[in-house]
Amino acid sequence: MYDKGISTAVIKRLPRYYRYLGELLEKDVVRISSKELSEKMNVTASQIRQDLNHFGGFGQQGYGYNVEYLYTEIGKILGLDQKNRVIIIGAGNLGQALANYADFERRGFLICGIFDVDPGKLGQRIRGLEIRPMEELADFIRKNDVKIAALTIPRQNAAQVAAELVSYGIRAFWNFAPTDLHLPPEVVLENVHLAESLMRLSYKLKSAEEPEEDDRAE
Amino acid sequence: MYDKGISTAVIKRLPRYYRYLGELLEKDVVRISSKELSEKMNVTASQIRQDLNHFGGFGQQGYGYNVEYLYTEIGKILGLDQKNRVIIIGAGNLGQALANYADFERRGFLICGIFDVDPGKLGQRIRGLEIRPMEELADFIRKNDVKIAALTIPRQNAAQVAAELVSYGIRAFWNFAPTDLHLPPEVVLENVHLAESLMRLSYKLKSAEEPEEDDRAE
Repeated sequence: MYDKGISTAVIKRLPRYYRYLGELLEKDVVRISSKELSEKMNVTASQIRQDLNHFGGFGQQGYGYNVEYLYTEIGKILGLDQKNRVIIIGAGNLGQALANYADFERRGFLICGIFDVDPGKLGQRIRGLEIRPMEELADFIRKNDVKIAALTIPRQNAAQVAAELVSYGIRAFWNFAPTDLHLPPEVVLENVHLAESLMRLSYKLKSAEEPEEDDRAE
Repeated sequence: MYDKGISTAVIKRLPRYYRYLGELLEKDVVRISSKELSEKMNVTASQIRQDLNHFGGFGQQGYGYNVEYLYTEIGKILGLDQKNRVIIIGAGNLGQALANYADFERRGFLICGIFDVDPGKLGQRIRGLEIRPMEELADFIRKNDVKIAALTIPRQNAAQVAAELVSYGIRAFWNFAPTDLHLPPEVVLENVHLAESLMRLSYKLKSAEEPEEDDRAE
């Protein structure tokens, strides 16, 4: 098995390795050196060797990495070798976009239920999935052994809904609500704060433009 | 003005400060100490003081921070005091979700155009905005002085479309295509790689569950 004391920085890079290796596989590339991988990914070759060494090091001197093997092993580390059932809470535009995103299925994530409070939406179908009322959540989660929930609901309701979901057995939140959830220690969380991401972009744009403005002012 | 040598870690936290301060403003909170802010945000008080010191330090000993002033100043730093016009490339589910997200407007981002290659979508309206053909991009960007583009298109087309957009004057990409864009140095980029985020969540879930599995195996 691999070292569990892996830094979050390494973990952050693993999905990116996985994505690149997937692209190489599609192009029937059989093996790749850390140097080539490093040029593609804009990470130093030594960084790549170091990162992959955490997982027992799949490379061989003079041969490089076997793409398929590395892809499969990183997939296992990421938990993608199991089917991960996911429910979506909130059938608004974003919830629907996630439900319709076929890329997730290719990674082993199966969106199996979508829920909303709005009675007007109930019974509508998104990619074959019926939108269900929140009252069915407890049963549905238990029957289908769902561990992962995507939250695409307003921030005002997020904390309360998350607490309910934990009590029904949810152990992982993919949180799109623009708020920080406070969860029990056994529950894991990944935030996608879109407005914050857009603000970072705005900051970068402003910083990139500033020297010009200074020039003009002189 | 403020120090331009700000670390990306600090910049990453600024939008979060901004969000919290906005929530405090909504609740008519006039001032807050770094201690209170630190408890709310789960960051140490000294971290907060250090972060905000980069921008001239808006706090006063024994008084704390004036919420509205801090909110406004951080907003300026993030470039939110100007109207930022944004176009969306790709009117699929995700593009539509972004176009419909009212939160962005509150932050000063004005979605002013949405474009797609699919002739079947042209002329349809999303939140009052007509979906336009890609052929109109060059003119539209120049006439409306648009600097920011959200890319919600398949990865296969992303690099080429991005290069075109740069030639028309786009200077900031909010990239949702699952690929890394290689852009000229004057162009800024913020990636939202949803599949990677979901894989990180899967990894965290797997890591959290592993001790249990080990127990069972013994």
